[in-house]
Amino acid sequence: MAERKRVVSGMRPTGRLHLGNLHGALANWIELSKRDDLECFFFSADWHALTTGYAATAAIRADEREMFVDMLAAGLDPARATLFVQSAVKEHAELYLLLGMVTPNPWLERIPAFKEQQQELRDRELNTYGFLGYPLLMTADVAAYRASLVPVGQDQLAHLELAREIVRRFHHFYGDVLVEPQPLLTKAPKVWGTDGRKMSKSYGNTIVLGEDEESTRRKILRATTDPARVRRQDPGNPENCGIFHLHEIYSSPERVAEVDRGCRTAAIGCVDCKRGLLTALLPAQAKLRERREAILAKPAQVDEAVSAGNEEARRVAGETLAAVRDAMHLSRGAGG
Amino acid sequence: MAERKRVVSGMRPTGRLHLGNLHGALANWIELSKRDDLECFFFSADWHALTTGYAATAAIRADEREMFVDMLAAGLDPARATLFVQSAVKEHAELYLLLGMVTPNPWLERIPAFKEQQQELRDRELNTYGFLGYPLLMTADVAAYRASLVPVGQDQLAHLELAREIVRRFHHFYGDVLVEPQPLLTKAPKVWGTDGRKMSKSYGNTIVLGEDEESTRRKILRATTDPARVRRQDPGNPENCGIFHLHEIYSSPERVAEVDRGCRTAAIGCVDCKRGLLTALLPAQAKLRERREAILAKPAQVDEAVSAGNEEARRVAGETLAAVRDAMHLSRGAGG
Repeated sequence: MAERKRVVSGMRPTGRLHLGNLHGALANWIELSKRDDLECFFFSADWHALTTGYAATAAIRADEREMFVDMLAAGLDPARATLFVQSAVKEHAELYLLLGMVTPNPWLERIPAFKEQQQELRDRELNTYGFLGYPLLMTADVAAYRASLVPVGQDQLAHLELAREIVRRFHHFYGDVLVEPQPLLTKAPKVWGTDGRKMSKSYGNTIVLGEDEESTRRKILRATTDPARVRRQDPGNPENCGIFHLHEIYSSPERVAEVDRGCRTAAIGCVDCKRGLLTALLPAQAKLRERREAILAKPAQVDEAVSAGNEEARRVAGETLAAVRDAMHLSRGAGG
Repeated sequence: MAERKRVVSGMRPTGRLHLGNLHGALANWIELSKRDDLECFFFSADWHALTTGYAATAAIRADEREMFVDMLAAGLDPARATLFVQSAVKEHAELYLLLGMVTPNPWLERIPAFKEQQQELRDRELNTYGFLGYPLLMTADVAAYRASLVPVGQDQLAHLELAREIVRRFHHFYGDVLVEPQPLLTKAPKVWGTDGRKMSKSYGNTIVLGEDEESTRRKILRATTDPARVRRQDPGNPENCGIFHLHEIYSSPERVAEVDRGCRTAAIGCVDCKRGLLTALLPAQAKLRERREAILAKPAQVDEAVSAGNEEARRVAGETLAAVRDAMHLSRGAGG
């Protein structure tokens, strides 16, 4: 058997996952973990959450647990992927510190997100050392496993390019002990929130995994559709409608084609269209709810999966860090 | 018995120690470790060495070993102080990462040494993340042990003030789990190198601990004295003479008074003054040489002392980090 390629990806612990998290990232993780040519490491990025959320951490543990429950409920199999907590693997912090020694600050400052998020999250003090070092920590997260592939969207390519630059600079000084990570570009389907913007917890426009029937139904029926379709008889543009994008995920291709035609010709109205979506969405939500309940009935299995994952992650990252320390001529670590 | 106050201090592993290291820092460490009211943690600051020396690390391990041998030879008793290696205690990296989340970059940029050393070490690229974070790492080094006292010279007060500010900001967000470190100001005697500048490895003007008799003698006899005392009959100013400052350390108070008077009145010449110094310095060097040899004859005792020290440091820092993780509501660490 050819050696499997390592894949690493993390998700910030934001509590119960929503349909945007599921179809934007988690569904892809599940697909990747089914491939026999890949070895997957997926983690709760709790340290990353601190880079912007250091002032409000009270819910981190509970949020992390909800996230793991949802991951398992959605079908991520801990036997096929190592699930772990970033902060439980100290090697991430060690490698972050070591890589920082060779990383010029301008490389970090020029990452577009550094200025953008400071603008966007004006109410928070984000000119911090931790926030500046966020792409460096991301580099360490990946390099600690010598991962060759990182599933990213278009907007994350700059971070990954920086990661490769940092790894190359490290290699220049100490020899080739790490791996330059390449992007595994994934086209995520669009998932819009109930207000027509991207679905996001911070916008308060989400539907969570396995949300109860009544609430899912109400949110869908009240959700924004194509804002240009004011009256029933106006033709709509499905591209501008979050309901249509959910059809693309949940309905059959035939049904999607029908909806598309019906909207553009005003043959169906938004309410009918939404009811159609619910016939596909509600059973999917019911199934997720069942699986969540089954998992919550045996909560120890979540702890066991994460605990075993932490151990495996520490083993692999520990090997990398031993090689890194050797290459840098540092003391041999724990035993030393 | 009242609880002992914790003291933490580190030294970069630069190889064999010289008389400047001994009298500038190590002698003070030895004194502190003899006090029953203090609990001392002294470490090899190998990660700090990387902040400026990341491009040339080949000698770090060997240099670190030489340094520990010299520390023991000079009389630092591992039974009275915990000797350890910074990079062997991952909690320093973890706390550095966590404290970084709440540390504004301007606090780090305003530390005078940040700009100064970039000027001074122009040949190195020092606008790096690691170098910017050097005072933050220093804060973590101290806070990881909840040390209340840090032996510093006047030039380090700004760093310690920053450390207290960072600890206070951390406490503001997460509650009082750390300790604000206070300076233990120590007046170190002047130790000048053979060229009249401060003794420093980078100036190539050092005399190492236990340097052999022939070499010690030659260096002293050729050393720069008061540059204003050109001829034998010119009166000198002992304040401007490195040989006089060594007398202050090695000769009896009576002898120092004699030398002072003799120099100012031109009653003694520099060669006689140097010979007088050698009668005190050479036996001290011989004793250090003997102790070094005794230690090198049983090298395992060095490894054992450092290995036991690493373990104890990890135990204490581990307690602190467990409290820190709890205060921040992060996962419970290794087992989690």
